[in-house]
Amino acid sequence: YGKNTIKFLRLHKEGKKQFVKEVEVCAHLRLTSPQEYLDGNNSLVIPTDTIKNIVLVLAKKNGIPSLEQFAIDICNHFMTTFCQVAYVKAYVQEVPWQRLHEDGVPHIHSFICVPDGIRFCEAEQCRNGPLIVFAGIKDLKLMKTTQSGFEGFYKNEHTTLPERHDRILCGEFFCKWSYGECKDFDFNCIWKKIRECILESFAGPPDCGEYSPSYQKTVNCIQMHVLSRVPQVQVIEVVLNNTFYNVVDMKNLGLTNDKEVLVPVETPYGSCTCTLGRKSFFEA
Amino acid sequence: YGKNTIKFLRLHKEGKKQFVKEVEVCAHLRLTSPQEYLDGNNSLVIPTDTIKNIVLVLAKKNGIPSLEQFAIDICNHFMTTFCQVAYVKAYVQEVPWQRLHEDGVPHIHSFICVPDGIRFCEAEQCRNGPLIVFAGIKDLKLMKTTQSGFEGFYKNEHTTLPERHDRILCGEFFCKWSYGECKDFDFNCIWKKIRECILESFAGPPDCGEYSPSYQKTVNCIQMHVLSRVPQVQVIEVVLNNTFYNVVDMKNLGLTNDKEVLVPVETPYGSCTCTLGRKSFFEA
Amino acid sequence: YGKNTIKFLRLHKEGKKQFVKEVEVCAHLRLTSPQEYLDGNNSLVIPTDTIKNIVLVLAKKNGIPSLEQFAIDICNHFMTTFCQVAYVKAYVQEVPWQRLHEDGVPHIHSFICVPDGIRFCEAEQCRNGPLIVFAGIKDLKLMKTTQSGFEGFYKNEHTTLPERHDRILCGEFFCKWSYGECKDFDFNCIWKKIRECILESFAGPPDCGEYSPSYQKTVNCIQMHVLSRVPQVQVIEVVLNNTFYNVVDMKNLGLTNDKEVLVPVETPYGSCTCTLGRKSFFEA
Amino acid sequence: YGKNTIKFLRLHKEGKKQFVKEVEVCAHLRLTSPQEYLDGNNSLVIPTDTIKNIVLVLAKKNGIPSLEQFAIDICNHFMTTFCQVAYVKAYVQEVPWQRLHEDGVPHIHSFICVPDGIRFCEAEQCRNGPLIVFAGIKDLKLMKTTQSGFEGFYKNEHTTLPERHDRILCGEFFCKWSYGECKDFDFNCIWKKIRECILESFAGPPDCGEYSPSYQKTVNCIQMHVLSRVPQVQVIEVVLNNTFYNVVDMKNLGLTNDKEVLVPVETPYGSCTCTLGRKSFFEA
Repeated sequence: YGKNTIKFLRLHKEGKKQFVKEVEVCAHLRLTSPQEYLDGNNSLVIPTDTIKNIVLVLAKKNGIPSLEQFAIDICNHFMTTFCQVAYVKAYVQEVPWQRLHEDGVPHIHSFICVPDGIRFCEAEQCRNGPLIVFAGIKDLKLMKTTQSGFEGFYKNEHTTLPERHDRILCGEFFCKWSYGECKDFDFNCIWKKIRECILESFAGPPDCGEYSPSYQKTVNCIQMHVLSRVPQVQVIEVVLNNTFYNVVDMKNLGLTNDKEVLVPVETPYGSCTCTLGRKSFFEA
Repeated sequence: YGKNTIKFLRLHKEGKKQFVKEVEVCAHLRLTSPQEYLDGNNSLVIPTDTIKNIVLVLAKKNGIPSLEQFAIDICNHFMTTFCQVAYVKAYVQEVPWQRLHEDGVPHIHSFICVPDGIRFCEAEQCRNGPLIVFAGIKDLKLMKTTQSGFEGFYKNEHTTLPERHDRILCGEFFCKWSYGECKDFDFNCIWKKIRECILESFAGPPDCGEYSPSYQKTVNCIQMHVLSRVPQVQVIEVVLNNTFYNVVDMKNLGLTNDKEVLVPVETPYGSCTCTLGRKSFFEA
Repeated sequence: YGKNTIKFLRLHKEGKKQFVKEVEVCAHLRLTSPQEYLDGNNSLVIPTDTIKNIVLVLAKKNGIPSLEQFAIDICNHFMTTFCQVAYVKAYVQEVPWQRLHEDGVPHIHSFICVPDGIRFCEAEQCRNGPLIVFAGIKDLKLMKTTQSGFEGFYKNEHTTLPERHDRILCGEFFCKWSYGECKDFDFNCIWKKIRECILESFAGPPDCGEYSPSYQKTVNCIQMHVLSRVPQVQVIEVVLNNTFYNVVDMKNLGLTNDKEVLVPVETPYGSCTCTLGRKSFFEA
Repeated sequence: YGKNTIKFLRLHKEGKKQFVKEVEVCAHLRLTSPQEYLDGNNSLVIPTDTIKNIVLVLAKKNGIPSLEQFAIDICNHFMTTFCQVAYVKAYVQEVPWQRLHEDGVPHIHSFICVPDGIRFCEAEQCRNGPLIVFAGIKDLKLMKTTQSGFEGFYKNEHTTLPERHDRILCGEFFCKWSYGECKDFDFNCIWKKIRECILESFAGPPDCGEYSPSYQKTVNCIQMHVLSRVPQVQVIEVVLNNTFYNVVDMKNLGLTNDKEVLVPVETPYGSCTCTLGRKSFFEA
């Protein structure tokens, strides 16, 4: 079982207009025989250097129309070329370059890196098994300054947390979903739609928001919203790593702090995770 | 000589609409007497805990209309309150929260973190000296996929670099400038204008760009452009940490790679720095 | 499903001699009912603040005789106290403080941080299931400057790697093993013995070393050695993240470089993983 | 003004015994003319690729007997070879590989990375000026669990910190010193002696320690001790980035916590810096 990471740039032109994708690819392979480990027999081992060459050649030949299609291309290549491969997984992650605009006019060859959530995908396949495609977004940091609370939780002698009905909800999201049979999907379009769904469920309507009674409920709302709006998604996992903020007590300093100044509490750092799928998926 | 770092959130409301600033403040103090070091006499020492309280109280009382104004407020407070302070510097850096939009409609209380260049500022003052204000942007990553070269450089027996007239120009920018006498400046507006100038000089006109003969020349163009367009700027320092990309040689793999696939070269990592000011500034 | 991270220091004294453990604890809980997610009903939810309090109280009451015993204590507490907990996992990691020595004399209360491999452990339990204990070491960086090669691997049209019989073997190890029924183990002593086994198998005899025909074989040797020498270990997983070094080609510079100057190749970054257990374990 | 970073390994053998140095070198150059910035005229520019080649060639030819000697070699080469160089600085930092030992026997070619303080040095020279050599240690983390307090500090209406006579002293040290005229110094031996002085002054006598009334005083003690014991040192700068620990208040949890359980306070993060030199140095 081995993996390796390759980072590269893929450029292409349409007339004078230039396009760029910078990606990090991580390919995992498992061979049918463990002889390399047990006997030091390397005859079936595919060196990481060869894996790197293959990934670069595929990028050169096929381009990267979408991260997902590129991950699929990699899996297909390893499965069809090497009979000693029992399992292959390709993880592809994007550096978020966006075209620069000057007064609304898009620039022909200049880009700025805007990391407001990183797109990634994964394709995996066992020999004789189906090709499964996942996609996701990570490092997406969101904050609601109101419409969030936490009340009615379990209490015992170790409880010191007060109930709160107006706190800050802030955290970093990791969302990963799987597609069912995925021929002819417009992966780029679907990904954008899912990102919008996530932001909408987190924030609620622009004029008033929507009250969140817990991180857990917010996570669940996101999942329900994505599953109801995007039929291609089969299962969706959401992890929320919270940052807590405490209202600074300024009584000793002679002031009343009406949720105006807050400090982050770095410990404890909480996280909640949930995986939700369609009924048909789990029944299948 | 001591410093410390405080991170906090400042909220305020206008009607139902909420606003948020998350900042990291670093305050440096130097006292008139070194007795704390030499004798272990703490009687003039201002504990970091007190410094933290003061910063939070100032944020509560004054808000953060701009990073620069907040840094000025901190300097003023320490200079006027503590006669044992010989020097004070306040560094303020912003977490880049941006208001969320749904279909173009701004959300009343939800935000997303978009780190496409981090805004910071610095104010410093020696007792009986002027208050000096700096501002800047850091972690700004830009790329041009063409219109960049490097030719005609110095050569000797240790030179192996080929001349190139069509390479990638990619790097992370750090820009810091100082203001002259700065009463009544609209710091937020000036900062945005300078950021635009930096992007424009880097990229050139949107339809064709502008050829860069070296990193150094690009750095200089940015400085000249800012100085010519923003009269409030006295001196500007620009540091460019380059990422080099090499076109992958695919001859051994039977392919011609026409600047389509490139890999980053992590070593050597280059950097070029230049500080440029107005003539009047250096003559003064 | 939720987790959170708590970092703290536990001191104790024996006479005037002081002892310190600094640990990071991450507790994961899964409840029997998902109602918190689906209905926003928080009545069974144990806040991360309460979890933090419990971990600190256990540290205060029981001390940290070993990381493993502390992780076991945490699992036991949650399983016996909260009937709504379906699953608990406690991960404990140590900050590697070592007692300072002056001319060989141990200091009574001073310590230095020596991160040459980080000790960690994990205990987990499902309700009505057994308590399982893992231990491990991570961030352990080792290098052999000779006695390592890679030859006889699979070749095709994408192969460009030359065969090598004298390369650098360098990488970061992650090793994690599980104990069987683990009452009355001296976890501290066993951990030290396993660390020694890992170093011995990596390096070979001090006067000559032992040839490694591949990373995979080295990983396997470590596993075999630990299993043969430490009967308490049931299964051991080893991950090796390699750093590759290339001998710099100095022909263009008029010099012959006989493996004297090498540069790290940051791309591709390779990794190999293997899990090995006793026959009886897999048969059971 | 430009710099760049090069990382490499230098091996050498004495009989069968192998030795390794892994270093990161950062070379800064300033040219006599700014024409590269102003006119885009590259004719005097020394590409980073050439700088990298020179550093590697020097490592190949001279080896790295000490970091300081290697930094001196780099400065000398650039000053004597390139008349367009007005200023050169070479920073060299070591990856802390230590020889492995098995039962006290040193291994012939195996090493472990032990980052308990990183050694670095700097040499710099202006054309027609003296060569100045600095050395230092960074990322050195030390802790005293007692014999530290902070009392008698300045108080006003913003003071909330209680006085403490038995707190934890913990922090990360950065120490950098300069040598005077430094021909024929045994840099390796001096560096080890200074490291010992730092640890001794921090900790005090092994059987009882020595009370520290403030971070500032501890910083000053280290400086005084080094200057008194190591005549080659002219000036020494010490920066201490503190980690504060608070005793957890367990009254609400029905327990008395007698400085047994403490949590790190990540905000505010304090730092104190002091530079101390010989009288003769400042008079000169």
